Amino acid sequence: MPSPVPEGRTRGALLPIGGAMDLHRKRLIVQRFCALAGGADARIIIIPTASELPNGGEEYIDVFSGESGSRQVHVLPLRSRADALDPDHEAEIGEATGIFLTGGNQLKFTAMLGGTPIATAIRRANARGVPVAGTSAGASAMSAHMIAGGAKGLVPRYGMVQFAPGLGLNNRVVIDQHFGARHRLGRLITAVSFNPYLIGLGLDENTAAEIDDDHLMRVVGEGSVTVVDGSTISHSNVHQLRPGQRATIIGVQLHVLTGGWGYDLIKREVLADAHS
Amino acid sequence: MPSPVPEGRTRGALLPIGGAMDLHRKRLIVQRFCALAGGADARIIIIPTASELPNGGEEYIDVFSGESGSRQVHVLPLRSRADALDPDHEAEIGEATGIFLTGGNQLKFTAMLGGTPIATAIRRANARGVPVAGTSAGASAMSAHMIAGGAKGLVPRYGMVQFAPGLGLNNRVVIDQHFGARHRLGRLITAVSFNPYLIGLGLDENTAAEIDDDHLMRVVGEGSVTVVDGSTISHSNVHQLRPGQRATIIGVQLHVLTGGWGYDLIKREVLADAHS
Repeated sequence: MPSPVPEGRTRGALLPIGGAMDLHRKRLIVQRFCALAGGADARIIIIPTASELPNGGEEYIDVFSGESGSRQVHVLPLRSRADALDPDHEAEIGEATGIFLTGGNQLKFTAMLGGTPIATAIRRANARGVPVAGTSAGASAMSAHMIAGGAKGLVPRYGMVQFAPGLGLNNRVVIDQHFGARHRLGRLITAVSFNPYLIGLGLDENTAAEIDDDHLMRVVGEGSVTVVDGSTISHSNVHQLRPGQRATIIGVQLHVLTGGWGYDLIKREVLADAHS
Repeated sequence: MPSPVPEGRTRGALLPIGGAMDLHRKRLIVQRFCALAGGADARIIIIPTASELPNGGEEYIDVFSGESGSRQVHVLPLRSRADALDPDHEAEIGEATGIFLTGGNQLKFTAMLGGTPIATAIRRANARGVPVAGTSAGASAMSAHMIAGGAKGLVPRYGMVQFAPGLGLNNRVVIDQHFGARHRLGRLITAVSFNPYLIGLGLDENTAAEIDDDHLMRVVGEGSVTVVDGSTISHSNVHQLRPGQRATIIGVQLHVLTGGWGYDLIKREVLADAHS
């Protein structure tokens, strides 16, 4: 579902974040997002649709404004499907230089925005160069294939992960968040085993996976990004299981990467720490 | 995930079929597939991966050969993930003029072929003009977003549909099959409500939805294709439900189309019967 890139443009970076982003101390991810969005010239739009809170998203205004030096940071009031069908909001996305998707419930995000002009406007903005960041539910929602929910645990079992169609800014990865803290390896391996075309990215809290237009991913922040590559799976029985049954899966490749390390999502190869 | 179309080429038609295809009487769908594949000059490859039967796919050889007049119809022995990682089979897909995906279990199809050179070869063949047909599980597997399973019934309930990432020949539709016979309206509406970007296609048995490179769909066969358009949904609560709870969904558009009628998957508009 990614929009085609217009001639002469470069697709904007994606910055999915594993939740619990540090907003007040070292703020590595805030810094990176504000720099990508254009610093003092940034026009940042916060999309609070995933949040169930009436003021969801407002907590980022001062943070992004303070870091970037720009006063053009605001929340687009998209809290229901009726809001998303209102054509006035579409134009504002057209003028943004950075888009941020809050946490909350990723299925609310797609159920409210899917098939509306807002979703199309976000995809087109990214295709013409606008960076898009999202934390927690906002990170999950970015890709075409989204983990809508599931159970925790390290061992893959059938029925421990539910997929839903996401926003479609990238179609090669499936993103999970709060990864280490919530023990989500089992559900990410299960997700990848359903179709090993997908590369699993398990994002720890306060950690982001920056994906550029060449499909190169770099880790930003204080935790790890766990990469699950299933293309080497030589045997799996996920299609034969009943809900709750443990899966047999042979040959998954796992890479646990910290800040500065990266991964080529086309070649499926680790990229050494850019800073070393 | 659809591959880019090479310059000077036109993407091949997709022909998802709702199962229980008539192979011996009027054979409307067999005729159409064989014509799309090139008639007497066709080189048809049958991919039996979804099937759990040791000889799955062989029942189509005489049918396609008899109809097309071509003797170049064979089954590619892709029954496990190890088969799919064997590079010899890739070249055969490169020479096909028509590809047919059998029924069986769509999650077996994606778990075995996902992330292998075979899946890439099928996407590339379609992008350069080769028609791809699939029946039952083979129909479900064609799109980027695949219904892997679910419960029957007419009323949408949370948890009645399971998604998995499909082969990705099209990313605008989600396909269900044996639609009327197995009472699958509830699960198709639930699937669309998760992200109303997707257009639901519910295919009756012995009925196909032919999708061309302009995203125009035409009904072929003796049953109906039910189109579920969720872009007009003004309210839904699917993100707030627990498994088994009934959903409230307001404003779904439904079109029930028979042979000759069509639907524009970009404009979301019905196309009048081409034969009337």
